[in-house]
Amino acid sequence: MPEPLRLQGISASAGYAEGPLFNLDRGPARYTGKATAGEEKAALKAAIASASDRLATLIETADDEAAGILEFQLAMLEDDALTGPAFVAIPSGVPADMAWRQALDAEIAGYETSDQDYFRARAADMRDIRDRVLRALTEEQESAAPAGAILYGEDIAPTRFLETDWSAGGGIALRAGSTASHVAMLARSRGVPMIVGLGVVGLGSSPANPNGLALLDAEHGGIVLAPSKAEIETFRRSSSSFAARRDKAEAYLAKPAVTRAGTTVRVQVNIADPSEVDGIDIATCDGVGLMRTEFLFGKAPPDEETQYRAYRKVLEWAGEKPVTIRTVDAGGDKPVPGFTVEESNPFLGLRGIRLSLARPDVFRVQIRALLRAAVHGNLKVMFPMIAVTEEYQRAAALFAEEQAGLIARGIAQKMPPLGIMVEVPSVAIAPDAFADVAFFSIGSNDLTQYVMAAARDNAAVAHLNSVRHPAVLRLIAAVTAFGLRAKIPVSLCGDAGGDPASIPALLEAGLRDLSVAPAQLAMAKAAISDVAV
Amino acid sequence: MPEPLRLQGISASAGYAEGPLFNLDRGPARYTGKATAGEEKAALKAAIASASDRLATLIETADDEAAGILEFQLAMLEDDALTGPAFVAIPSGVPADMAWRQALDAEIAGYETSDQDYFRARAADMRDIRDRVLRALTEEQESAAPAGAILYGEDIAPTRFLETDWSAGGGIALRAGSTASHVAMLARSRGVPMIVGLGVVGLGSSPANPNGLALLDAEHGGIVLAPSKAEIETFRRSSSSFAARRDKAEAYLAKPAVTRAGTTVRVQVNIADPSEVDGIDIATCDGVGLMRTEFLFGKAPPDEETQYRAYRKVLEWAGEKPVTIRTVDAGGDKPVPGFTVEESNPFLGLRGIRLSLARPDVFRVQIRALLRAAVHGNLKVMFPMIAVTEEYQRAAALFAEEQAGLIARGIAQKMPPLGIMVEVPSVAIAPDAFADVAFFSIGSNDLTQYVMAAARDNAAVAHLNSVRHPAVLRLIAAVTAFGLRAKIPVSLCGDAGGDPASIPALLEAGLRDLSVAPAQLAMAKAAISDVAV
Repeated sequence: MPEPLRLQGISASAGYAEGPLFNLDRGPARYTGKATAGEEKAALKAAIASASDRLATLIETADDEAAGILEFQLAMLEDDALTGPAFVAIPSGVPADMAWRQALDAEIAGYETSDQDYFRARAADMRDIRDRVLRALTEEQESAAPAGAILYGEDIAPTRFLETDWSAGGGIALRAGSTASHVAMLARSRGVPMIVGLGVVGLGSSPANPNGLALLDAEHGGIVLAPSKAEIETFRRSSSSFAARRDKAEAYLAKPAVTRAGTTVRVQVNIADPSEVDGIDIATCDGVGLMRTEFLFGKAPPDEETQYRAYRKVLEWAGEKPVTIRTVDAGGDKPVPGFTVEESNPFLGLRGIRLSLARPDVFRVQIRALLRAAVHGNLKVMFPMIAVTEEYQRAAALFAEEQAGLIARGIAQKMPPLGIMVEVPSVAIAPDAFADVAFFSIGSNDLTQYVMAAARDNAAVAHLNSVRHPAVLRLIAAVTAFGLRAKIPVSLCGDAGGDPASIPALLEAGLRDLSVAPAQLAMAKAAISDVAV
Repeated sequence: MPEPLRLQGISASAGYAEGPLFNLDRGPARYTGKATAGEEKAALKAAIASASDRLATLIETADDEAAGILEFQLAMLEDDALTGPAFVAIPSGVPADMAWRQALDAEIAGYETSDQDYFRARAADMRDIRDRVLRALTEEQESAAPAGAILYGEDIAPTRFLETDWSAGGGIALRAGSTASHVAMLARSRGVPMIVGLGVVGLGSSPANPNGLALLDAEHGGIVLAPSKAEIETFRRSSSSFAARRDKAEAYLAKPAVTRAGTTVRVQVNIADPSEVDGIDIATCDGVGLMRTEFLFGKAPPDEETQYRAYRKVLEWAGEKPVTIRTVDAGGDKPVPGFTVEESNPFLGLRGIRLSLARPDVFRVQIRALLRAAVHGNLKVMFPMIAVTEEYQRAAALFAEEQAGLIARGIAQKMPPLGIMVEVPSVAIAPDAFADVAFFSIGSNDLTQYVMAAARDNAAVAHLNSVRHPAVLRLIAAVTAFGLRAKIPVSLCGDAGGDPASIPALLEAGLRDLSVAPAQLAMAKAAISDVAV
């Protein structure tokens, strides 16, 4: 009987799963070499074409989010700069599989050693591409995981996630991985439990019980291999409790959020992409507290029409309810080619409003799109990473200038209320300098990481990164109190707003307006109903 | 008559210089190839030996600081891993100069693309090594700059700095460069004006007036090429005023620091290396407010004896005056091989006390060395990057454990007062959680960068990184007021303490104890004498 083995990682998508382990790291089958370099080239060409076809087929049935990821992979496969080196190597006697592997591994190494989480997270996509073509070369089918299995390994390919049937449960446990990866985003939106960062020790590629039962607690970020009977029972109780909380929460979804003492709390949603609103009933929330616009900037700054259409879609969906759009918060962990710059500490660098003000050519396009979209609903606009009042004044002046320009050209427009994110500590410590803004939205993720000097994506300092540290709560309470005195609305749009464990402290700090991820809406409302304030 | 051209960079060493420009970027002379690969190898070997000899000669006459830098270069030159690839390339027909250049350029590229400022700053050392050997190959002497010249270029080699005669004035203006480079450190300690970060535009490799007069204002970080007569006059007035302030300040050096209103202010010094105290008269300061210990950790964690001797040297030098030693603040921009980890935002990562607590094997050695050294003077010990009270408690517990161990072994020891750096905003916002520490030392550099969310080494956000922002001053005043109430001494040991422009605000915030760089001691005392509080 093997000893139970408990491993701790980081939750990337909350939930529980119990099932057999399935090893993701089995390499592809052996390739049988061809007689001539010409045949090797032809085999590689065919394998790339087959992998591309497979991706194109997947894209047809994927939703917007998944399609975006797969299109990124397809574009890479169609890029001669990526595939070329393999074809160059073949004539000197390198077999097709080795030529392909070497070419891709060189690319992957570049991604893996990047200091940007964004690019490191893309290494998983590159490995996915590499293995798809290798499998096509050997005409091997990817072996399917048994239903309800817990997929474990170094990392997981996005296409593997999309091709897996999650209807019978199951989950993901990764030694490396990132909460910022494509798969982590997909797992959260589909409710698949997932943990990352289990580290190099422990859950090896050949655990003691390769097919034994494992317990994945992705609410707290742990996994148990070869569990004892007592552990299985405890796990099932936690899992049931989680499911019960989730079910109970569903009942709160349709109702306004009210505390036990009868205090009404506004609960809005955070969205990262206009397509997300298709899955949300506007009646279940009080509007959009944060619409991110980084998605539009994926590969390059977008044109005015593209932005205008995206903003208008969400405004029309929300009707009379407010939609708070944040001007682009590029930089930090969100690089945009041709726009952001490489920095040794990007979270403390040229990001958010700093970058927008440094690049008025890009910023003015977004401003015009916002002014034009404003006529289609209840728009509010906020600026990320404001640290000093001059930044707000300069941004507001650009809005006024662009409005004048649109008026002169006879184009329909409307000036939205202009507010700021409260995430740089300087603003939270001295909010009185901002008495002329239309509203405050506390960005608790960034505020916490700056107040604690602990990067929010660094597992080594995760124990310090807590929104419930008294210093963070003190600042939140101070901003909320200032807002009340100065009659400036204050909301909060960080992850803490949707975290049942943090909601009591936030309401005690005086907040009455939270904006949460759509998947957290029900749980947040349920948690609010338990608070005494 | 060329138009005046004004360029703005960052001050790396304050001061003024007026003189002809001297281009640092002239490449070495052309190498005449040899007949056989054997001869090429011999030529390269001889050139490396010659460059090593030259370095060894320089080391003999260098002071400790310079010797350390040159020894780093010599160790690199003697490392086969660096030189080997060039010798491997020669037999396949590559001439010695090209083989050497290719081998070194590959290394340099690795340094230049590092996300760590420390390693990027070392790229200048690698280019220095490359060019020394190339010059030895062509038997070319480095052309000396005319006396009083302003050396400009992409970057400057440390040996070039050390071989230049600065007695007739002169200065340095770099397109790239770093305030953290070896040369910047040397320039500050020798009073050579220097600016960095002029950028890729402007001061090109062939400016309009290659030998014309340039005005270097390294107090404010600017340079003017082809200045007008009026500009020359203004510049000379600023330069005289700076010199006068510096001279006047010298008169204050020997006296205690007192404000215009008669308030006494303690002024201690910050030191980074025990050898620095040889140049300081202890009578001119109130002790050592910050002794850094990172220098000891240059290549690897040092043994107990090495640390003990370094601490004891400074304690004996200071006599009865206090010496506040900070436990190692590795990480951030100070990596230590085998100790620190690579992170995407090192300023928000595993650094300071976080790393020490994560590596008690390393920390306990430092603790024992401190406990033993404490018997030789008036030692105080402080912990960097404290964010939560648990960190202080765990560190203090380790001190108690190691003291018990030393007592059991009959080794002389003494428990010093244990204080904390106030640099993580959480501590400054809620100092009341730390009522049991022996003292607070405000680290204004880090505190400012976190409060403003603006990295202190990033020129793109330098406009936000101000200790005089009301939010930063508000926190400093709050910590000082709490210290008064709780009877906990509060000092400040960041760069702001020695900055005449910031001193009035710091004293107004209630501070009466500043710790400054030795070179700033006189100017700081002079500035204090002008303050009304």
